[in-house]
This record gives sequence, C-alpha cells and structure tokens, in this order.
Amino acid sequence: MGGESSFEGKRVIVQFTTAPVGEGVSVSKFVAEALKEVEGSGLRFQLTPMATILEAESLHEAMEVILRAHEAVFRAGAKRVLTDIKIDDRRDEPRRMEDKVEKVERLLAAERDK
Amino acid sequence: MGGESSFEGKRVIVQFTTAPVGEGVSVSKFVAEALKEVEGSGLRFQLTPMATILEAESLHEAMEVILRAHEAVFRAGAKRVLTDIKIDDRRDEPRRMEDKVEKVERLLAAERDK
Amino acid sequence: MGGESSFEGKRVIVQFTTAPVGEGVSVSKFVAEALKEVEGSGLRFQLTPMATILEAESLHEAMEVILRAHEAVFRAGAKRVLTDIKIDDRRDEPRRMEDKVEKVERLLAAERDK
Amino acid sequence: MGGESSFEGKRVIVQFTTAPVGEGVSVSKFVAEALKEVEGSGLRFQLTPMATILEAESLHEAMEVILRAHEAVFRAGAKRVLTDIKIDDRRDEPRRMEDKVEKVERLLAAERDK
Repeated sequence: MGGESSFEGKRVIVQFTTAPVGEGVSVSKFVAEALKEVEGSGLRFQLTPMATILEAESLHEAMEVILRAHEAVFRAGAKRVLTDIKIDDRRDEPRRMEDKVEKVERLLAAERDK
Repeated sequence: MGGESSFEGKRVIVQFTTAPVGEGVSVSKFVAEALKEVEGSGLRFQLTPMATILEAESLHEAMEVILRAHEAVFRAGAKRVLTDIKIDDRRDEPRRMEDKVEKVERLLAAERDK
Repeated sequence: MGGESSFEGKRVIVQFTTAPVGEGVSVSKFVAEALKEVEGSGLRFQLTPMATILEAESLHEAMEVILRAHEAVFRAGAKRVLTDIKIDDRRDEPRRMEDKVEKVERLLAAERDK
Repeated sequence: MGGESSFEGKRVIVQFTTAPVGEGVSVSKFVAEALKEVEGSGLRFQLTPMATILEAESLHEAMEVILRAHEAVFRAGAKRVLTDIKIDDRRDEPRRMEDKVEKVERLLAAERDK
C-alpha cells in the first residue's frame, strides 16, 4: 500500500493494468515504469498480482495518473499498449479501498460465528 | 456506426461500458444517457451488445468523452457507477476500428480458400 | 453475425478477447485461430473491433467455446495468453444480443422525437 | 491469502469480479456468498478491493470455481449477474501469484539503489 493522505469525504477507487503488446513474454520491466508514475503521484495505491488499484478524491485525478502510466509504457519502448481500467465511483458514502475487503470479510466471519 | 471525420494518421481505439449499481435489473435508460454524450462528441463510434467502441485521434479526447458518459449516469439518478475501459493504443501504423475486424476476416477467408 | 439457432428462452451473452503476450505487435493471426473455434461452435456471435460477443443457452456452453479459443492461441505458438471475459447473465427474461442495442437505440430515438 | 497447496509446476492466475445488477447500491452480501465458493475450493486466492485473484494448476479448475461463485450470486437472490474474468496463462515457466508483484517491486528497488 503506497502513498499517504488523510481521508476527507468520498473517494473513487480505480483498478488498472497497462502492458505492451509484442515486447516479449515478460512485461514486468514495463509495468515497473508504469508504477513509477503511480508512486510519484502521491495517491494511495495497492499493487496486486493482476492490477494496480488507486484511491483518489476525484476521478480526473485518478485518470491523469493512469494516462501517465500508459505513456510510460510507450516511453519504455512499446509500439502498442493495452490498458484496462475499472472505475468504482460511489457517491452516497465515503470509503477507502480497504473498506471493501473488510466489509466482505466481516460478513464471512459473522456467518462462521453463527 | 456514428460520427464522421476524415482519417488522418494514427488512432486510438477505446471500448467502454458504464452502468449504475442498484438502479434495477434493466439499465438501458442509463446507457442511453451515456450514449448521448458519445453522439454529441462527434467521434466515430460503434454500439455493440456489450460495450461502446470509440475511435479518436488522441487518448485524452476519448477519455474526456468517456468521463462525460460516466457523469451522465450519475445525472440520471445513480448513486454508484461502474465504468470499464479498454484502451488499444497502437502508434506504429494508422488504422480505423473496422480495420481490426477486416484483418481477422481476411485471414479466415484466405484459409477457407486454400 | 455468425451461427444459426432458433431462440428458445433465456440466453447468456458473453464478450471475450484472447491474445498472446510477446508474439509481435500484430496479433490478428492469433485472433483468427481463436475465432475459428467460435465459428465451429455453431453459437451466434458478433466480431467487433475490440472483442467477440457470444450468445448461448447456458453459461457452460459459452465458456467451453471461450476456453477452446484460448487454447487455439497456444496451439498457434504463444507461450503466454491473456483472455478477458465479461458475462452478462440475465434470467428474468429471454433476450438476444441485438435486443440490448435496439433497446438503447429505441430510447434515443424516442427522445429525439419528443 | 487463502487456501494451501504445494507448488508443482506451472500455474494459471485468474482475476474475477461477480456482482448482481439491480440489488441495491451495496453488493457486499452477494460478494461474500461468491467468496464462500472460493474458500471452499481449497485454491490459493487473494481478495483485493476490486476483485478476487485465484491461482490454479489448470484453467478448467479455476473456471469451475468462478462459475460456482457466479451461481452463488443468483442463489442469493439476484436476477441478473455480471461477472468479469481476466486470465493470465503463462506456460513457459512456473510461478505463483506473489511472484508477479515481487518481480515489479524488485525492479523498482534496484532502480532506487542505483
């Protein structure tokens, strides 16, 4: 979990993956270049085995970071880049990334205790 | 296929879906609101049974339209919106959306003729 | 639109893309191999610039075809394959792929006529 | 990280999300039902804020678990379910989920040390 910021109000949570097409079977070098943009943004994020998840106060803020990550893959030498983005934008209540996991785990634990 | 523009140079092709969470089993009313933003953009697009596909000269141009479509779902009454985006950004040669389909169909036809 | 079958009851609609990692910038040769599995399945399908959309009477039937398409990319020489699948499974009413597009277009047309 | 199994040879890594359409703004109750199927499978998995990631010895094994999770959402009362799946199937070398994260983090650390 990277980045630091205090929690004020509603957050958008965005997952993305970015990778080159045709630059070899291993793409971790390119993913590392993309991740540097995320680290540099100061946004809270989590790197998972399949994606990077960001938390931001506005959707535009999150998208700017993802587009910089996408450009970083081109700068690293790619001629074609595929980027997948999944936005979860909930405006009725504030929350953080970890709230989503905790809520599900609490439900499962409650059921085991019955 | 909507929108009209002449083809100059490289294009980015972006697929997206946007839909509310918790606003009933049918979401076509919300999808129609999102699509109005796409139609209003003047970009070339194709509506498929599972997504909307856009073609733009720059990635930022495409993303602006998608974020407007995402906001349109909130304006139509949603409290939570999920938006999926898949960017295919190829910078070594120009192409249009339909080129991708035609290339695959040509390969299949060539094989049948063998 | 490929395949032929009469419409009896509820259908699942599934979109997928399958592509090799590290086999060059153009992947249409691999996509054509995958599509041969779809054509051979007899399921109704639509090839779009970004994905293939299938319609099936059961989810298992659709998934079997997609896994055969995924294997076809390996048989064509890939060492690593990424496959994305989006399942839309609605069991309260029957429908076909084209219904989803028509519903949205009808809503937009109705609004223009107002 | 759940499940326990020794590591023998190549693994497929699969990410998925499953959620009902039209069952309210919060869907964690449904996600918990889906996750019970994953826990019961004995496969190694990781729950993230945006998805569940599975590791399996075969793709069919992973897909069976995902389809059971998808059915669990219907059993919990949904009339329509959307499920997204992303398969990363690499057959040239063995690996585990955490290898993908570690590889990227090692590259970033190496660069910081330069």
